[in-house]
Amino acid sequence: MSEAYTAIEVIRTKRDGGVLSGAQIDWVIDGYTRGIVADEQMAALAMAILLRGMTAAEIARWTAAMVASGERLDLSGLSRPTVDKHSTGGVGDKITLPLTPLVAACGAAVPQLSGRGLGHTGGTLDKLESIPGLRTRLCTVEFLAQLRDVGAAICAAGEGLAPADRKLYALRDVTGTVESIPLIASSIMSKKIAEGTAALVLDVKVGSGAFMKDVGAARELAHTMVGLGDAHGVRTVALLTDMCTPLGRAVGNAVEVAESVQILAGGGPPDVLELTLTLAREMLAAAGLPDAADPADVLTGGRAMDTWRALVRAQGGDPDAPLPTAPEVEYLRADRDGWVGSVEAYAVGVAAWRLGAGRARSSDQVSAVAGVLLHRRPGERVRAGEVLCELRTDSADRIPAAVAAARSAVDIVDVEPPARPLVLERIA
Amino acid sequence: MSEAYTAIEVIRTKRDGGVLSGAQIDWVIDGYTRGIVADEQMAALAMAILLRGMTAAEIARWTAAMVASGERLDLSGLSRPTVDKHSTGGVGDKITLPLTPLVAACGAAVPQLSGRGLGHTGGTLDKLESIPGLRTRLCTVEFLAQLRDVGAAICAAGEGLAPADRKLYALRDVTGTVESIPLIASSIMSKKIAEGTAALVLDVKVGSGAFMKDVGAARELAHTMVGLGDAHGVRTVALLTDMCTPLGRAVGNAVEVAESVQILAGGGPPDVLELTLTLAREMLAAAGLPDAADPADVLTGGRAMDTWRALVRAQGGDPDAPLPTAPEVEYLRADRDGWVGSVEAYAVGVAAWRLGAGRARSSDQVSAVAGVLLHRRPGERVRAGEVLCELRTDSADRIPAAVAAARSAVDIVDVEPPARPLVLERIA
Repeated sequence: MSEAYTAIEVIRTKRDGGVLSGAQIDWVIDGYTRGIVADEQMAALAMAILLRGMTAAEIARWTAAMVASGERLDLSGLSRPTVDKHSTGGVGDKITLPLTPLVAACGAAVPQLSGRGLGHTGGTLDKLESIPGLRTRLCTVEFLAQLRDVGAAICAAGEGLAPADRKLYALRDVTGTVESIPLIASSIMSKKIAEGTAALVLDVKVGSGAFMKDVGAARELAHTMVGLGDAHGVRTVALLTDMCTPLGRAVGNAVEVAESVQILAGGGPPDVLELTLTLAREMLAAAGLPDAADPADVLTGGRAMDTWRALVRAQGGDPDAPLPTAPEVEYLRADRDGWVGSVEAYAVGVAAWRLGAGRARSSDQVSAVAGVLLHRRPGERVRAGEVLCELRTDSADRIPAAVAAARSAVDIVDVEPPARPLVLERIA
Repeated sequence: MSEAYTAIEVIRTKRDGGVLSGAQIDWVIDGYTRGIVADEQMAALAMAILLRGMTAAEIARWTAAMVASGERLDLSGLSRPTVDKHSTGGVGDKITLPLTPLVAACGAAVPQLSGRGLGHTGGTLDKLESIPGLRTRLCTVEFLAQLRDVGAAICAAGEGLAPADRKLYALRDVTGTVESIPLIASSIMSKKIAEGTAALVLDVKVGSGAFMKDVGAARELAHTMVGLGDAHGVRTVALLTDMCTPLGRAVGNAVEVAESVQILAGGGPPDVLELTLTLAREMLAAAGLPDAADPADVLTGGRAMDTWRALVRAQGGDPDAPLPTAPEVEYLRADRDGWVGSVEAYAVGVAAWRLGAGRARSSDQVSAVAGVLLHRRPGERVRAGEVLCELRTDSADRIPAAVAAARSAVDIVDVEPPARPLVLERIA
């Protein structure tokens, strides 16, 4: 398409509620990647998209254009079927860490390209880097070799994959244009399509600790992403899962690695185990391996732990090295007897962020040791004076703001609260 | 206000349909002026404002913040009352050129800070600069001295006046965020308030050749601007005037100066004369000079021409120098007998722009000689083969596109069309 749609024409079309043509979308994504469309023009367009929406056809073309802005990896040479998982982000969501080696140990290859945390949600790469020596930047040759030899890698996406998305993601972050279902869906799916996985399981989080606060929006996002995956030949399934409560007892970086290792050792909190096994079974089915060994058996048999140790070693880390510990620790105690009614995910995420586990800007450094340990989870009994949660940080001056956030998160009630389901819906 | 509202919080407030606080507006305008708020953040905010709107209180604060971003001239030391005029822009709208010296000759001081053309509408400064030697950049000292000695100046706004608006205007131009009544009103009024005029008459154009295509939007813009002027102590009146048809017979740069000089010499097209006199009377009334000499008499008596010549000389121009002429001329002829039914302003504006009279980007140069001369106006008889309009340009390769636009502009009908009123409404 050689016709030069000007950026202003594209912006005006969407601003006035129109539908962008395929040629307009191709032009604007290509132009943005090459710097012909300026950041301020893309920011105005992103805001117009957020407020006006996009049709399914527009989202599909937008996603395809972002995939086409870079290379698409070819994983078809691997001897095992490929399958990946993506979570839309939550508090205490370390599931990728035990899940990736578990699914690889069951016979699939898992090309996990992950991201970093921003705001109150943590990032898989930040967590993994709390393991001494571990590298999350692999070149394509290393990535492919590790998929072949270990069956799994957890690393950052290379700069050649969906560069349009890389630029747009950073722009949306500073222009208040993150919360758009078309832009979220196309961002996630363009990276996953470009990485070359044949199948994908999406964990779409719903609740106070997630981007999507209500089931309706989460369902729309899930349907949109499943449609995009299918349109690009990636078998895609989505689960909607609860994110009103943090996953497990650990929220932070090293503390989440430690909890993940507990799961791989056959222990760990029941909710983390349940979600890990549910997602593992979905991934094996999507990968076309319905007759693979049961993930629960693979966990207890130790083979997932073996794969985890091989993955850590392949990426330069020492699986036997002790994880870093925090110099400053503060405890929050119950002021009365009762049951823990709720532990509000968003507030716990903010507490961990205040302690240094997350970043406010993408250029910020995160602390490996910072985080929150929940000594009590919803439905557990507590007596006055007992510890509700533990706050860990590098610097004592971060504690007061974190205490305020953590205190607001925990609610003690007089009657045992009902259990909440973890998996809400399945969309395929 | 020392509290640091982050740009993203301000953007999200407006994006989600909220009302910006005064402190948020002050912070974002100041931050944008100083480069703390990035272009892409202001672009997203401008799009959110365009799509979500602003309350009257938000527009007032936004305007005040843009005025406060720079200096505000003090014209109170002049012995004459000050009054200015602003047009929202049309095709063939050279009214500022005869009007400014006319009102000065009637006893007011007219501090005309004008702009340049962009797209299909011309700019007063571009027209004026077709006079050999004339400068439109005056420093504040020159500007004040000329107001005192000549009674009028037509020049570019200094960089110290409303710098936030200067930056935002350029940004809106490339981000598809021009067409927002709150942003248009605050942009116009912040400059006029900062220039220090005590009174202001607004010519709000309505029709195909104007920004405002319908009377409702024009009326809303006029009411908004009148309210802003009054709130800042500037007595403000607005006229809604027709811009379906170009004003006069000349559309371009030097050709519009020539037509303006005809008006100052007591001749010129009746519509240009009518609008010049109507606006002059409004300006004198707003300036508190209801007993000034009648502008019609001042025109025919030659005193307005004297002031024009003094103004041109004071700005370095030679009022007796011949205006530049075009090397390439093309004529468009009627293909049948009849009356000219309509001459569509937008299409004529595009024709003049194609000939080189206007610019597509703010960095483009304009041609002094380029333009359209309408040999026939609506309601005039024409015979097959007679000239409808004349196209002038520097370069023959510009002619075909201009011919296409001009041909689409003129409509020949079988019965005499009704006359259209020029002044539609008065809002004070």
